[in-house]
Order: sequence, then structure tokens, then C-alpha cells
Amino acid sequence: MKQIVAQKLKDLRERSPLVHNITNFVVMNNTANAILAVGASPMMVHGHQEVEAGVTISNSLVINIGTVDDYWTESMKKAAACAKKLNKPWVLDPVGAGLSTFRDEVLYDLLEYEPTVIRGNASEIMALDQFSDGETKGVDSTKSSFEALSAAIALNQKYGAIVCISGEVDYIISKEKIVTVRNGSPLMTKVTGLGCSSTAVIGAFLGLHSNPFEEAIAGVSILSLAGELAHKQSNGPGSLQMHLLDILYQMDDEILFRYLQVDEYSELF
Amino acid sequence: MKQIVAQKLKDLRERSPLVHNITNFVVMNNTANAILAVGASPMMVHGHQEVEAGVTISNSLVINIGTVDDYWTESMKKAAACAKKLNKPWVLDPVGAGLSTFRDEVLYDLLEYEPTVIRGNASEIMALDQFSDGETKGVDSTKSSFEALSAAIALNQKYGAIVCISGEVDYIISKEKIVTVRNGSPLMTKVTGLGCSSTAVIGAFLGLHSNPFEEAIAGVSILSLAGELAHKQSNGPGSLQMHLLDILYQMDDEILFRYLQVDEYSELF
Amino acid sequence: MKQIVAQKLKDLRERSPLVHNITNFVVMNNTANAILAVGASPMMVHGHQEVEAGVTISNSLVINIGTVDDYWTESMKKAAACAKKLNKPWVLDPVGAGLSTFRDEVLYDLLEYEPTVIRGNASEIMALDQFSDGETKGVDSTKSSFEALSAAIALNQKYGAIVCISGEVDYIISKEKIVTVRNGSPLMTKVTGLGCSSTAVIGAFLGLHSNPFEEAIAGVSILSLAGELAHKQSNGPGSLQMHLLDILYQMDDEILFRYLQVDEYSELF
Repeated sequence: MKQIVAQKLKDLRERSPLVHNITNFVVMNNTANAILAVGASPMMVHGHQEVEAGVTISNSLVINIGTVDDYWTESMKKAAACAKKLNKPWVLDPVGAGLSTFRDEVLYDLLEYEPTVIRGNASEIMALDQFSDGETKGVDSTKSSFEALSAAIALNQKYGAIVCISGEVDYIISKEKIVTVRNGSPLMTKVTGLGCSSTAVIGAFLGLHSNPFEEAIAGVSILSLAGELAHKQSNGPGSLQMHLLDILYQMDDEILFRYLQVDEYSELF
Repeated sequence: MKQIVAQKLKDLRERSPLVHNITNFVVMNNTANAILAVGASPMMVHGHQEVEAGVTISNSLVINIGTVDDYWTESMKKAAACAKKLNKPWVLDPVGAGLSTFRDEVLYDLLEYEPTVIRGNASEIMALDQFSDGETKGVDSTKSSFEALSAAIALNQKYGAIVCISGEVDYIISKEKIVTVRNGSPLMTKVTGLGCSSTAVIGAFLGLHSNPFEEAIAGVSILSLAGELAHKQSNGPGSLQMHLLDILYQMDDEILFRYLQVDEYSELF
Repeated sequence: MKQIVAQKLKDLRERSPLVHNITNFVVMNNTANAILAVGASPMMVHGHQEVEAGVTISNSLVINIGTVDDYWTESMKKAAACAKKLNKPWVLDPVGAGLSTFRDEVLYDLLEYEPTVIRGNASEIMALDQFSDGETKGVDSTKSSFEALSAAIALNQKYGAIVCISGEVDYIISKEKIVTVRNGSPLMTKVTGLGCSSTAVIGAFLGLHSNPFEEAIAGVSILSLAGELAHKQSNGPGSLQMHLLDILYQMDDEILFRYLQVDEYSELF
């Protein structure tokens, strides 16, 4: 499994996929930087007249609904529809799922365009499974990733998407297998947009367009590992964000084989 | 007074209030990070269909008009109206007050929803008092905070809001008292959005919903002190922003009691 | 030529021009910080009702079309028209030129308002010359700056604007002269928005409103040199962004005379 992640990283840097992002205002800068640091090329266009041109020339698409409004809803739907039509892989980040009927309806519409991957925290994955939730606390999760496992499996079965849950343990779920990543750091929750950065890096790997399950594993692994290693060099969340980008850029076989804790399970546990 | 600030910080970290932000595009990332670093939880949603849901589940609201336009004006009004109705504390940052009739009308409308706290630089507070100003220089103040004192007192008397003026000396003004904070650093004016970060951190403390004057003092104190201490570790504005977030995260009793310079005056001086 | 750059920097810090920016969401924070760090004062307002008030009180204008949409197109046109009418210098950053007909039409409309300076990477300058390009790769250039030289000259002749091409070598082109800047670092392409920061810093110098060719040279020189020196202190793109802002702030005669590699050619080579 480490070997696969290492190979995907090599492929990414060789091919430098172009990643189209329709994402939220809060994280545009740091997720673009995460995509660049890992070795891909970000693009962010959302104008209704050109969003499909953006999808067409890109290798993959990231949709993150964090600061969605009327105009951006339309941008997202156009982009997702275009990705489906052109068979481009795309990842959905259901930020704040369960906050409002509006948000859940946007998500429901986007799910119809069959995201290749869905990544969220436990609260978001659980809300997405049910499209109703009285316990959302904004955009931060109040639940452990383990608690969202059955919701993630249900989502995978219903929509066919690979589902990633971020948390103390990260889960990546396909129809056949579950992979866990035991890297990361609690300090990552004190930096805005690192979950969104995980989604963005997954999107970068999806641009390889070969094996989306392996690509999702690579994206989750590398972001969480970079966060863990960044924490060791950091005095707080400000320096963590900076070091994380540096380490994404420095990431190589040696670091991966030494520190990555990724495990595969072929049946539910 | 130091004791009060220290206690508020303890309370904040114990309860981690959810802070809803309708703020400007320039500072969304660093103000979200400031809120996280100090120990609260930020949320940023502005879609008309859900902005009230955001206010409803939050403990407090931050409205910052920096990059206001037609859509966002409506988001802000809906949010402020909802906060007033639900008795949620909220803070207004009148960025660029006096720049245009449009901006001043937005501010006038928002003031009708009775912000709990108003925080701005001297130019903004003076423009807000008069709703006319020929001397605005964009979003940076051309005046000392002391010059805005009478305008701040007038605003407090007219609208009942606690008024904070940022500057070389920060002032926090209630009906009965004036508090000064003599921390901060001139280098902070070379980093975009540190005034907005002060507003955001005030918003975080307002989420405690107990004593808004003390909460405003805590917010102003901790941001200005963090900036001052960050400057000592910095080679320029880039590193100041990073260290400021680290120090907000590290802030504790020891730092507060050693470095905070906060004074209370029970009558005008 | 170094003497001119040094003098412009002194002038900038003495006068601290107010720079109005209508720019893209991804880079708003770091370009505002670049403008502050170098010694000018940024403002970012785009509401249709006040965009002209913003231009009126500012010394110069930056228009960057990165994340343009319907609303922002109108903001940009109003601002550019106002700048032309009031004879305020302005710089256009044609991010992603060639991506779509929509984007090219926006650019075509903006060019009618006679930008003082145009700055882009090689792909963008070539697309802008032709208003058609099958080879755009998102917002990153796939071509060397040298390849865009004839397109830049054509643009200069057609529109009268000074044209800057960013790349391994930066070119600044007027009707009579070509200046090269051989500073910078390849790592700068791994940080989002440093091209946009170059545009923003050019905009800051244009606020001196004396000699736009020299001001464009100063802007390009100082940003590229700061990036090069920042790279020497950096472990990756995260720390490069931070150090770049610190070095913009520290930039002085000693650094300029020691490291700047700027050359002037009075005829084509």
C-alpha cells in the first residue's frame, strides 16, 4: 500500500495534472497552494459562461460547497454535469452538510452527477447519509471518524463513490475494501481548510485518472502525513500551515516509507 | 482587569463558541484561523437561504463589510436581523466607512439591528459617527485612535453598542467606562486584516454571551498582545502573521499577566 | 537602472500610494499583503455602486480577471472606465487568457480602456495577442517568457501599454526599450499568486504616477528579487510566501544594488 502511494506521487509529479476547483472563499488560497506543493496545477474558474471550458481542459475537478450561494450553486452543477458527461473524475467536499435544507438540496443535486470521491469529516458524512441532522456544529466535526463508518459505507453503496472520512483515523472506503490512515495531528483542526486541502490533494491525484481508490488513498495519506510531520516542526497553527506546504513539496519515498501508517482491510471489522 | 481577560480566555477554550462570520474576501482565511487559534470555532455561510440557519446554530456573529456588494448586503442584513431577533451577540466591523454613500447606507441599515460591539480604526469610527467624511484613505486609518474618542462615545450613546477603536492605543468604550490596551505593534498595520482579526476574536469572546464589555476587552487585549509578541519574533509582516496565530494558540495566564497593559477609567479623561 | 528602481522604492515609501484592487478571490490576501509589505496601501472594493468612488480616491488601479464572473466583469469595466476618464494609471493581469470566449471578451473590453501596463506569463501574453489559443494550461504558463516576446511587442504597439512577461527572465517592454530582470526562482511557480503579486506591486509603483515604464520595471524587479532571496531562506513554497513578504518589507538600496540583475536594451535583440 505504501508502494502504491509512492508510485502515485511519482506519477503526479511527472504528469502534473490540471485540477479545476470550484471551492469556498475561505480556503481558495491554501488549497491552491496544497495542489501546487504536491506537484499538480490548480485552476479556479466559476463564471457560468466558462465553467465547462474549465472542466474540459482539466484532468479532474474539486467541488467544495463551503460558501455556496445562488450563483455558485449553478457553477457547481454545471461543472459536475460536465465532469460526468466527459467522464472526468471529481471529488465532492460536503462542507457543513446538514446545516440547512438549501445546503442539503445542493448536495443532493450534486450527488446525482456521481462524484468519484466524497471526502468529509464524520459529522458531514453522517449528515450526507441522512440528509437530516440536528447535531451539526458548523463546519467542524463533533464526532469521531469511526462513528461515521456505517454512514460512509451506506453512501458508497448508494452512490458508488469512494468515501473518505477525515479524523483521528482517516478511512477510505470502496465497495470491496476499507483503508485506514493513522497519521495526522489534532493541531490540524486548529488550521482552517486542512480538510479542504485533503479534498484538493485527492482531486490532484484523481487527475491521474487510473485507479480512483488508490488515488484517494494517496491524497488522504499524503496530506495527513504532511500535517503530522508539520506539527513536529510547529509552535502552533500558524507555523503548521506553512510547514505543511513545505513538507507536501518535500514529500518523497523516504518520508512515506518511514512514517506512513496505512492499512488495508478486505472485510468490515 | 487582567484577571477578567484570563478568565474569559479559560471560558472560551472550555466552551469553544461557534462564531458565524459574514466577512470580506480578503481576510476570510486569516480571521477564520484567528478564531480557531484562540480556541473558538468559525463558520462562514452567506447564502440567502441559509444565513439565518447559520445565525441560529451559532453563539455569536461577526459582520465585516470590507468587500460588500449587492448580494452580500442582503446576507448581512438577514444575519443581523436574525441575531437581533434571537438575542445573539454580534460585532460590526465598518471597514472603509465613509468611502461611499452605498457603504454608509449599508452601515446605517446594519446599525438599526443594534450591534453589541462596533470595532474599527479611528477613521472608520469617525466616519461612522458622522456618515460623511472627506478624508477617508481607503481602509487604513490616517488618524490616531485618540482623535476618534469623542466619536466613539457619541456612537455608544446613540446606538448603545460597545465601541472599540484600534490604534497605537486601543480603546474599549461602554456607557460607564473606558478601557485602554497599550499593546500591539506598528508592524501590525503592514499585515492585511489584523484589525479584522481583532473583530473576529471579539466575536469569538462574545459567543460566551455573559458580559459583552468584558468580552470585547478580552478580544481586543488578546489580539493586540499576540501581535506585539509576534512582532518580537518576526523579520517582517509575513512572519508576523504566522507567529500571531501561533501566539494566539499559546496565549495563557502567564503571558497575559506578564505583558498585558490594560487600564480602566471610570470617567472621561 | 538600479538607481531608478531604488529611487522609485524611496518614493513609494514616502508617498504610500493608495492602490485599488479588483482582483481574484485566490490571491486577495497575499496580494494585499504584498502591497502593504512594499510600502503602499491596498483597497479592495467591487460593489457596483462604489467601485468608481474607490478609483477616484486611489492613486492607481489593479485589475486581475482570475475568478471573473458576471458581477465582477461589470465591476472591472466600471473601474477601468473610471480610471481612463480620470487619467489614473492601471495595470491589467489577464489571468487565464485564452481559456474561454467569455474570458477573452472581458479582456477585449478591458483593453479598450487602455491599461497603462499589462503583466502576464508567456501563455497569457500570447493568448492576449491573438485572442485565440488552443494551448492554454489553466493559469500556469507552458511556455518560456522569451517565446512571448513578439506577442508582447505586438500588444505594446497595438494598445500602447507597457507589457511585462514573467518567467525565468522577466521582460518589460515599452515602445523604445526592453528591460530584462534576471532574478526570481523556479520555486515561485509553486506558490499561488506570485504572478498576481508582481502585478499588484507594479500597481503600487504606478501610484507614483510619474513614469510608468520605470514604475513597471521597479515593480517587476522588486517582486522577482524578493522571491529569489526568499527562496534562499525557504524549505518549500509555504516558507517562501512568508519570507517573500518579509523581504519585500526589508528591501533597501543595499539589497537592490547587490542582487538586482536588470538590463536595458534600446533595440530588439
